Amino acid sequence: MENIKDKKDLTISIIGGTDGLGKWFAKYLKNKGFNIIVTGRDVEKGKNVEKELNVKFINNNIEAAKKGDIVIIAVPINVTEKVIKEVAPHVRKGCLLMDITSIKEIPTKTMEKYVREGVTVIPTHPMFGPSTPSLLRQVVILTPTEKHKKSEWFEKVYNFLVKEGAKVIVIPAEKHDRIMGIVQGLTHFAFISLGSTLKELNVDIKESRKFASPIYELMISIIGRIIGQNPYLYADIQMFNPRIQEIHKTFINQCMEISKIVANKDREGFVKIMKEAAKHFGSEAKRGAYYSDKAVFALSSEIEKLNKLIGKEIAVKNLNSNNIHFGILKNIEDDYLILEKNGKELKFNILRVEVFSGEELKNLKKKHFERKYSDISVLFKKSVDENVILNLLKKLFDVEIIDIYEGDKIEEGYKSITFRIYGYSKDELKEIEKEFLNIIKNIGGKERFK
Amino acid sequence: MENIKDKKDLTISIIGGTDGLGKWFAKYLKNKGFNIIVTGRDVEKGKNVEKELNVKFINNNIEAAKKGDIVIIAVPINVTEKVIKEVAPHVRKGCLLMDITSIKEIPTKTMEKYVREGVTVIPTHPMFGPSTPSLLRQVVILTPTEKHKKSEWFEKVYNFLVKEGAKVIVIPAEKHDRIMGIVQGLTHFAFISLGSTLKELNVDIKESRKFASPIYELMISIIGRIIGQNPYLYADIQMFNPRIQEIHKTFINQCMEISKIVANKDREGFVKIMKEAAKHFGSEAKRGAYYSDKAVFALSSEIEKLNKLIGKEIAVKNLNSNNIHFGILKNIEDDYLILEKNGKELKFNILRVEVFSGEELKNLKKKHFERKYSDISVLFKKSVDENVILNLLKKLFDVEIIDIYEGDKIEEGYKSITFRIYGYSKDELKEIEKEFLNIIKNIGGKERFK
Repeated sequence: MENIKDKKDLTISIIGGTDGLGKWFAKYLKNKGFNIIVTGRDVEKGKNVEKELNVKFINNNIEAAKKGDIVIIAVPINVTEKVIKEVAPHVRKGCLLMDITSIKEIPTKTMEKYVREGVTVIPTHPMFGPSTPSLLRQVVILTPTEKHKKSEWFEKVYNFLVKEGAKVIVIPAEKHDRIMGIVQGLTHFAFISLGSTLKELNVDIKESRKFASPIYELMISIIGRIIGQNPYLYADIQMFNPRIQEIHKTFINQCMEISKIVANKDREGFVKIMKEAAKHFGSEAKRGAYYSDKAVFALSSEIEKLNKLIGKEIAVKNLNSNNIHFGILKNIEDDYLILEKNGKELKFNILRVEVFSGEELKNLKKKHFERKYSDISVLFKKSVDENVILNLLKKLFDVEIIDIYEGDKIEEGYKSITFRIYGYSKDELKEIEKEFLNIIKNIGGKERFK
Repeated sequence: MENIKDKKDLTISIIGGTDGLGKWFAKYLKNKGFNIIVTGRDVEKGKNVEKELNVKFINNNIEAAKKGDIVIIAVPINVTEKVIKEVAPHVRKGCLLMDITSIKEIPTKTMEKYVREGVTVIPTHPMFGPSTPSLLRQVVILTPTEKHKKSEWFEKVYNFLVKEGAKVIVIPAEKHDRIMGIVQGLTHFAFISLGSTLKELNVDIKESRKFASPIYELMISIIGRIIGQNPYLYADIQMFNPRIQEIHKTFINQCMEISKIVANKDREGFVKIMKEAAKHFGSEAKRGAYYSDKAVFALSSEIEKLNKLIGKEIAVKNLNSNNIHFGILKNIEDDYLILEKNGKELKFNILRVEVFSGEELKNLKKKHFERKYSDISVLFKKSVDENVILNLLKKLFDVEIIDIYEGDKIEEGYKSITFRIYGYSKDELKEIEKEFLNIIKNIGGKERFK
């Protein structure tokens, strides 16, 4: 956006920037060097965000819209249309209006209708939530009309997103809503309906998993994931997609038709439906089988790997707290692993941890613990290449060379090499020293002094 | 079953044992030492199985039933009832009748009704397909009535399965069908309906994945997996479960109710349904989120791991053919990895391979290639412990000690140690020798002769 103005002179007003993805963008763009104004209904929250992110808070959408070179609407779906109507007429000529709502047809039409001549409109759907660390590898969908696609602002926004590592997709708003009606709408609808069905039939979920095929287990886990989300967001994604009724209707009709075929014991009818769906999927059917295989295989092989580590030292990273615990893996029980740490037994949910062993464990320990060390001086013949010795010893020890000395006080034809060996406790270091000296003795070295 | 008869005197007749899971059991039980008779409609196929498995084929179900100490019905679901009626009256007093159908209420009732007094009935549902290597960790459900649960045969069967490593669940047939109506019936029904919906809406599956959330990708992959299966089996699993109509009806009602709520923009109604389903799931909702996270994380971290291996040597195991290819990982492109092998580029679907590197690669190479070797004799001082030297060298080389010699022709105070070092080609071995001798020279050894 450098050509239009310098970054430091460019003001971005985020309407609804005190929460959720709006706040995320406020922080992200502030770090990129832009001036940021945020608005929000809750003044106290706004003042806190102002301090936290070092941005400006205004309790007035229209004023913020007037001040922004870029104005971004970041309010919940159900009030987006209303806020656009309020704010869009006040965006200055030559400036840019965007929104970041999960639906695109309504915001696109409304923004187009209510902005002044000479304002660029770029409706946007960032396909990620506020827990994402950066734009890297994230999908961002833009749905500008043809006119705005040719604007300078569009080029600037597009290039900025690509430079930040996002995967940018540009499609018409109608197509966006049609695809999202499937990708989000149908997916959420089916799994919420399944969850509600299991409740109606009073299925004991935990017990049912005992009989589970891996595919049932995956289905249950997706239901659990979806019904645990913010229900208002999910309601709005359904309710504000103009294509959703058609999608619901098609799905319910398919269910009813297949159910009728089953009731009539019409085997050939059932087979025809399955085969036609498979034909429509084409190579994607096989890909699906492979993909789900991998997902299932990855999970069961994690358990197998853990079983091989019983009795060994591991590090356990709690994915909720990001805390790391070091200890001995004592046992695996259902979803849990038991870690012995300083004589105490800790229990971790395997689904909620990452486990490190081997080389990764070594590196983690180095990062997490203060290492103690001991210096050992050893005499080797002058002709010996200390790098060869060091490379060999590094395979067994955490060791470096800190000094090489020849001459005075050193036996003729010899040089003194001082090794620094590391350990995590005095006792451990004592053991390491003993082993180290035993090896030195056998590979032509002799201890000088410690 | 040793108390009733010796294995080698015990005859197991498998009705429909020339195909699918029936054939699988014929092979498995033959290997365990039982006499096996199989029947089937196709005489040529039967003769082939007879030769292949070294079992007896009879083209007559009733005769086979008369001869079996154990008779197992292993025919497709849609003819199970008919075959039971034909066969059950001919099972001898004191013998055992089983079936291995995926539904249990109908076979259980039919077997109970048609067997003679004094025949034990153990209806069985092995929860796996014929691609499974053994009973280890597989779920097997038994649905005998109370009377048969107390029988000697039941104890034998139960203990046999447990000894083979299976997870055995014993429940009433009605409960089995109710649970399977969910675990298999509802799952298949929902995903087949989804697949059919995507076809009706003419969704371009591959294109839709570009916009995919990980959850949509998982859903698509499960649909693809299910609609690619044997449609007749899936038809029968729906049609012969006596509970399926109620399950379909409940699901369709939930879909219609939620769709109506969405049409009416009844946000609070939608939220209530999601919250109630989440409440019913309880801690399973969170578990689902974690579990699906792991599945998604496992897949993306596999790609990340592969990216780190570009330019390095790897082994690629094709999961379709089980062939292993060694080479340099050149690149990753979408679903594919490019392997350079002997100057040629090979392309593999990442979803269809297992990749080995590091220690695993080393072990694989040892198994797959003939190693060449070279013997090198080295003089070390007598005081040197050759095990210390060997352990150190093993960190860098594929090496062993094949001879230690002291005395005649050896310099006073020294011993000769002969190492055998391995490599996979003459050129590689030459390089290894050079490096090996350089290290030997630096750790107090001297070359004697080669």
